[in-house]
Amino acid sequence: MFRTHTCGELRMTDINKEITLAGWVQTVRKFGSITFVDLRDRYGITQLLFSEKLNALLDANPLGREFVLQVTGTVNERSNKNPQIPTGDIEILVHTFTILNKSATPPFTIQDDTDGGDDIRMKYRFLDLRRSAVRKNLELRYAVGRSARNYLHENNFMDIETPFLIKSTPEGARDFVVPSRMNEGQFYALPQSPQTFKQLLMVSGYDRYYQIVKCFRDEDLRADRQPEFTQIDCEMAFVEQEDILNMFEGLAKRIFKDVKNIDYTEKVERMSWENAMWTYGNDKPDTRFDMKLCNLKKPGSVFTDKSDHAALISGVDFKVFDEAETVLAIAVPGCSEYSRKQTDELTEWVKRPQIGMKGLVFIKCNADGTYKSSVDKFYPEEKLKAIAATANATAGDLILILAGAEERTRKAISDLRMYMADKLGLRKPGEFKLLWVLDFPLFEYAEEDNRWVARHHPFTSPKPDHIPVMIDNDPQISNAAEYLSHPYSGIKANAYDMVLNGNEIGGGSIRIHQRDLQEKMFAALGMDEAEQQHKFGFLLGAFEYGAPPHGGIAFGFDRFCAILGGSESIRDFIAFPKNNSGRDVMIDAPSAIDDKQLVELNIRLAGS
Amino acid sequence: MFRTHTCGELRMTDINKEITLAGWVQTVRKFGSITFVDLRDRYGITQLLFSEKLNALLDANPLGREFVLQVTGTVNERSNKNPQIPTGDIEILVHTFTILNKSATPPFTIQDDTDGGDDIRMKYRFLDLRRSAVRKNLELRYAVGRSARNYLHENNFMDIETPFLIKSTPEGARDFVVPSRMNEGQFYALPQSPQTFKQLLMVSGYDRYYQIVKCFRDEDLRADRQPEFTQIDCEMAFVEQEDILNMFEGLAKRIFKDVKNIDYTEKVERMSWENAMWTYGNDKPDTRFDMKLCNLKKPGSVFTDKSDHAALISGVDFKVFDEAETVLAIAVPGCSEYSRKQTDELTEWVKRPQIGMKGLVFIKCNADGTYKSSVDKFYPEEKLKAIAATANATAGDLILILAGAEERTRKAISDLRMYMADKLGLRKPGEFKLLWVLDFPLFEYAEEDNRWVARHHPFTSPKPDHIPVMIDNDPQISNAAEYLSHPYSGIKANAYDMVLNGNEIGGGSIRIHQRDLQEKMFAALGMDEAEQQHKFGFLLGAFEYGAPPHGGIAFGFDRFCAILGGSESIRDFIAFPKNNSGRDVMIDAPSAIDDKQLVELNIRLAGS
Repeated sequence: MFRTHTCGELRMTDINKEITLAGWVQTVRKFGSITFVDLRDRYGITQLLFSEKLNALLDANPLGREFVLQVTGTVNERSNKNPQIPTGDIEILVHTFTILNKSATPPFTIQDDTDGGDDIRMKYRFLDLRRSAVRKNLELRYAVGRSARNYLHENNFMDIETPFLIKSTPEGARDFVVPSRMNEGQFYALPQSPQTFKQLLMVSGYDRYYQIVKCFRDEDLRADRQPEFTQIDCEMAFVEQEDILNMFEGLAKRIFKDVKNIDYTEKVERMSWENAMWTYGNDKPDTRFDMKLCNLKKPGSVFTDKSDHAALISGVDFKVFDEAETVLAIAVPGCSEYSRKQTDELTEWVKRPQIGMKGLVFIKCNADGTYKSSVDKFYPEEKLKAIAATANATAGDLILILAGAEERTRKAISDLRMYMADKLGLRKPGEFKLLWVLDFPLFEYAEEDNRWVARHHPFTSPKPDHIPVMIDNDPQISNAAEYLSHPYSGIKANAYDMVLNGNEIGGGSIRIHQRDLQEKMFAALGMDEAEQQHKFGFLLGAFEYGAPPHGGIAFGFDRFCAILGGSESIRDFIAFPKNNSGRDVMIDAPSAIDDKQLVELNIRLAGS
Repeated sequence: MFRTHTCGELRMTDINKEITLAGWVQTVRKFGSITFVDLRDRYGITQLLFSEKLNALLDANPLGREFVLQVTGTVNERSNKNPQIPTGDIEILVHTFTILNKSATPPFTIQDDTDGGDDIRMKYRFLDLRRSAVRKNLELRYAVGRSARNYLHENNFMDIETPFLIKSTPEGARDFVVPSRMNEGQFYALPQSPQTFKQLLMVSGYDRYYQIVKCFRDEDLRADRQPEFTQIDCEMAFVEQEDILNMFEGLAKRIFKDVKNIDYTEKVERMSWENAMWTYGNDKPDTRFDMKLCNLKKPGSVFTDKSDHAALISGVDFKVFDEAETVLAIAVPGCSEYSRKQTDELTEWVKRPQIGMKGLVFIKCNADGTYKSSVDKFYPEEKLKAIAATANATAGDLILILAGAEERTRKAISDLRMYMADKLGLRKPGEFKLLWVLDFPLFEYAEEDNRWVARHHPFTSPKPDHIPVMIDNDPQISNAAEYLSHPYSGIKANAYDMVLNGNEIGGGSIRIHQRDLQEKMFAALGMDEAEQQHKFGFLLGAFEYGAPPHGGIAFGFDRFCAILGGSESIRDFIAFPKNNSGRDVMIDAPSAIDDKQLVELNIRLAGS
């Protein structure tokens, strides 16, 4: 061993011990005839003191930043203690030292606040990983994984590995494929998730399965997507939705305790998908703060049953509202005194292409009980007052109203709500709020193909009392314009998402375990019998041999870690991430391969 | 929850409890007006008693093998107890039952001794996995993984995920590659191991890394190889070989304790590669039994320094020995009375093409002190006696002698040693013997290219005192016939294999951490500077920024589990294995993919 202790370990109780440390040179500071060196490793930083006696040797062997250094010396009490670090009370009086390896000058500083930009840090990721900010992220990631494994183990779950070289069955996302050398013209696919395999394990009687496992999706990458990502993947047999919610609420709470020392004891709130959409315009609302939506004119194609407040805003010939499919409002607390400049800025914000609204209407609920709005010429004060009351606004609030096409307006008000909350500091970094969103629609309507697509995935079961609706009706949509009146559009799924601070961190469902229902599902998605058999024959076959009721969930491990670590970017929590073009710029992959490899694999490049 | 208890849980202490079970129907036995059903789940089997009252209902809803059944009833004491199973004292008097799912008749019986052949069981792997023999294997696998994780965690190792979509750098085995849609004409490769990434992590300061991780090799599959396999992959910084041996000897012992409850307290034996080859003809000897080799005429190209006993066998004009490169013997204990038929069978065995010897010479060391051999006309009794003494044979032993070309004969005697040990029951199933094999040659000579190849891999360090030999000499082999006299042929590696009962279960090395040495290694393997830079530029670059001394090991997780489970086949310990053509016959992969996918990936099939 090159060391007796780590650089984070020595304390006052070690005074006078003869020890050996090894690590990286963080800083070298010369004071007259003596030299101080901060030596760093994964565990901390220890101050080294090179006395005058070592000067000649140091001159002959100068130390530089990031040199790998081994020193032997005595633990001394520091005269000038540093209360900022755990080893701050001591220093090492160096007797001998060995430079184990030199270092070129790093292209950026190895510090929390580095001077390196994103590109250079990714190219030299092996240096970036030395920064304690990044190291803490990976340590947190390890702690989350460890905590999850312990909890699942204690609850009788078994880690079972599923294969990576499987069959391409593209549903939704694109598969990465792998040409088979031994089976000419054939390809494996990398799993988008172990979904069908974990279901087979349930059929096989392994009633509690988990895996922390890499998954692959060949999608066009958005800012915070990775082509390979990690799931905490779980499945249980002989359970109902309630059992799964309780089990995995427990998992999340255990992780909070183990990793953040947070006692998350309250029951996790549950909300139907419909209520989430109605109240927050979003199926993954951040519930750390209120600012709920007021549906002045409801999105009619989603909420056929709910009643809105259209009467409040109609009849004054304000065309913007009258012609809009939807009018939605939020009451922003304490912002009634926003200046013209501030409201103009908000208007500009909602007009950005990412939001895409034509404008913003506001009502100031003044502290003195009066109302002032940007639409005063249409709405007299008592109308404004009525709207404010409906929007649950109180004196001092600023009501923001958006109007336009259903989907866009709903998304815009939801984004605006988050934007205002960020502005007002309502999304508190240390606060964590979980939420179950339930009762998702089983299907979505795909306009281009005039057919149904599975909202979650094709293995999700309808709610038990909706099974007959599915079995007894023809999935065919005869009149595209009236898809909303098709019985399938009302079918709700036994599906659930776990939301943390406005981010979906997990999702799952009770699965179909009956062959006839699974076939009906595939048919509803436009798969004929031959295609069903080709793609999922093994699963349909398995359902014939005693498939138990089962369900599961998968957590986005990268994202869960990022949110726990207080970041919105999953890349900071992955040791070797890829950039937005799916490239690893450090190793320079992907890259061209040898012609010999192509020949062996029986493929050619398209251009060749 | 569909149950209050599992099928392995109920005992006499639960008598009179009202409980609910769910599971699979193992057997249905009708005795007059009552029916017994064995209900099975992952945890065990519980006997159900359907009384006369339920007859009509059972007739209307007949139960079959593998039906999924839920029952509610009372725990009763059995009149006819079954001491074979933990629940054998009780049975459930069924009040109500629900068939949760039916089952077709399985194509083979779900029993330890199934009537299903290999092919049918692989096609219906989801049913095969229900057999308790297979379930126990996967449970053992989970226990091994859990034990390894706990040990490594307690020793400050961190699980850090490395990427699966990396760069193709074929060295030795072929890569599986993945066409990149977003980077036209370029490919990712799936990792053969996380080798370079774990070394980068050492450079990054994560001084103790582990991962239980899938690796991929596109090799022609031998009986017990899988294209995807799992490693327990570990790396440590600031260590010497001794530290690694101790740490991972500890890991193996911990697994023995946790998984098999074996206190493996003795120090693991260590043996140089040369001694293993000299003593066992094999670098992964089974040391549970002796039967060591007698090198009558040594394999001269391996053991240039050792002295053999050629004088004992020469000078009698026995051409078979005189013309052989190598003559090797083993003394098989207690077999001197083998009949002519038995020795003939052994001769046939060594003449099989897999062994490839021309014949077998034997000497019977009779109990009465006399000697009898198959070469009596060449060797008088006192010569036989002298050979027997050299071979450490005692009265009652049968000496078996093989002669021929070096490599083949060495392999043959080693195989024969194992064959005889199996015959004599010397390879005891419950006995486990670990062995470290050390000091491997760094290089092997590749005749076809007249150059060196890395015996372990190109990142393995020579022994410290062999580093100058490597640096100071030109790797070029000027005279192919005399490669043995090239200085490189004598360089030993800081590499080690862990052997268990004659199987290599782990291997590793101290790594090169100096750029100049790594470049010399690549050059020795025939890589010019441009190729080095293209393939491993990131690693060479990393070595310039303060790379610490480091080393590691990787265990073959599948094989380790198989041996612990008493099997030679890794397939039995993988939930969803592939067959010898790399096919998953259950899901029918690999398979053809859509033309649309090919177009998107910018590739074509070779024949198209």
